[in-house]
Amino acid sequence: MEPLLGNTSESTIDNLQSTMNLMRQITEIAECREAVRSFQRRGQSVGLVLTMGALHAGHLSLIADARKRCDEVAVTIFVNPTQFGPKEDFSKYPRPLENDLKLCREAGAAIVFTPDVGTMYATDAAATLHVGVIGERLCGAYRPGHFDGVATVVCKLFNILPADAAFFGEKDYQQLTVIRRIVRDLNIPIEIVGCPTIREPDGLAMSSRNVYLSETERLQATSLSRALFAARAAVAAGEKDASSIVDQIRRTILDAGPASVDYIEVVDPDSLASLNWMHGRARICLAVRIGATRLIDNVEFQSQED
Amino acid sequence: MEPLLGNTSESTIDNLQSTMNLMRQITEIAECREAVRSFQRRGQSVGLVLTMGALHAGHLSLIADARKRCDEVAVTIFVNPTQFGPKEDFSKYPRPLENDLKLCREAGAAIVFTPDVGTMYATDAAATLHVGVIGERLCGAYRPGHFDGVATVVCKLFNILPADAAFFGEKDYQQLTVIRRIVRDLNIPIEIVGCPTIREPDGLAMSSRNVYLSETERLQATSLSRALFAARAAVAAGEKDASSIVDQIRRTILDAGPASVDYIEVVDPDSLASLNWMHGRARICLAVRIGATRLIDNVEFQSQED
Repeated sequence: MEPLLGNTSESTIDNLQSTMNLMRQITEIAECREAVRSFQRRGQSVGLVLTMGALHAGHLSLIADARKRCDEVAVTIFVNPTQFGPKEDFSKYPRPLENDLKLCREAGAAIVFTPDVGTMYATDAAATLHVGVIGERLCGAYRPGHFDGVATVVCKLFNILPADAAFFGEKDYQQLTVIRRIVRDLNIPIEIVGCPTIREPDGLAMSSRNVYLSETERLQATSLSRALFAARAAVAAGEKDASSIVDQIRRTILDAGPASVDYIEVVDPDSLASLNWMHGRARICLAVRIGATRLIDNVEFQSQED
Repeated sequence: MEPLLGNTSESTIDNLQSTMNLMRQITEIAECREAVRSFQRRGQSVGLVLTMGALHAGHLSLIADARKRCDEVAVTIFVNPTQFGPKEDFSKYPRPLENDLKLCREAGAAIVFTPDVGTMYATDAAATLHVGVIGERLCGAYRPGHFDGVATVVCKLFNILPADAAFFGEKDYQQLTVIRRIVRDLNIPIEIVGCPTIREPDGLAMSSRNVYLSETERLQATSLSRALFAARAAVAAGEKDASSIVDQIRRTILDAGPASVDYIEVVDPDSLASLNWMHGRARICLAVRIGATRLIDNVEFQSQED
């Protein structure tokens, strides 16, 4: 029997791939860009989902959203060192690559880009993006340089995979806001689609870092979403004072067990500026450490107009 | 008689443009990007020449080089405020737009992008590029923030005009080096082509700022290139000590009249790191103020191997 892909031209491979829904894992930049462009030249739109791997239902939901909106989906799996602080969990961040590739294949991704660090960063890499105050608030205050690292790698990946649209979860709300800002400010030709946070049945926002939680911590961690949902209900019922909402959230979280609150803030959904008083759309964002694990969550809410 | 372009479809206009060599002046971002992509969809490559206007033979040479290498040429004319320091010549920088458009048309440009500042920068623009030490040496030491401003606007223009190649003069050697670096570090999908410095018959490097020179200063300014050419000859003849070359250049310039030397440096052509001793390829770069006008120039030289 002839080898299936032996002696075939590139376009035959493309056609085969398309017919058989073969997923290509790509590690080189030029090949990856060409794979995206090759779809686009045939009139197919490409949706992009950027990940650090350790895929969970939240990522799979992004891939599903991308498949609904675009003809083909490209996923990236890259644990980006420049967005981790020196004391953060870069080395222990989970990297279950084989399982991730299997999940991408089952979810219908056409391309998975899995570069190594040396492919992404020259040893004398110097050019970086800076996002200013929008990256210095909330998580940025606790993770100096994190959002500049995110902005830089996202800009690089947008250039390597020049997709039509990119899909990001609202769970990382500040990240989504930063990415919208770099796309606007640098005129990057891609549409940014924010997708709802995917939660466990008990409300905990899906995160690759949830695996760090012990059984007790895992139970305790449900207090974050419980507190946020209660706050949203309070706002819908007429509460307008941000500090009393924040106090209520903090009490709910600390009542559930020992935790260290990095921040709980009511912010403008576009500028992330702190709000003292509810009017119209806003976002409540929080970051809390339970044991050694740092968790973030947020909800949108709409206050009644006066 | 029917109006020439009345009631025609977009593709008819494209065809007419192509047949009649009509040049389009465009001020809006989306229209500009679409114009570039429209050429590319028809299989035509696009070369890009970024300028601040006040076009001279140096710019026209870049457009000519772009025409040789690409099917169509796009030119931008934008005096970018973020690359001028607070005491620099932003407001008095020459802006002879009508004449610039005429020169672009005669040079065969297909597109000229002439945005206003509000089109290029949102009032709350926050995301910027930083280029690190490569932008802090040489001119960067005298113009803090200049190369970050250049890098940011160039990245924006590459996104607005996603051309196949961009053509930059070697006269602004540090700028060319910075742009090569951001393209590499951010994986921007464009080829950067460095083009030789174009000089007046007496050797003065062409610059839009030469119009600031009085008649006496204009004569005196020839000392810059004369000194650089003499240094290159000395290196070819065996001189290897950077400091004695720099001294010789400084003497030639100061002998020609009152001038203030910002720097004269022998540098590595890629990293711009200062060199003390010649071996292989290097670049001599200088910046000198004559009267109120700051002039820059540089030459490449090749030292004999030991």
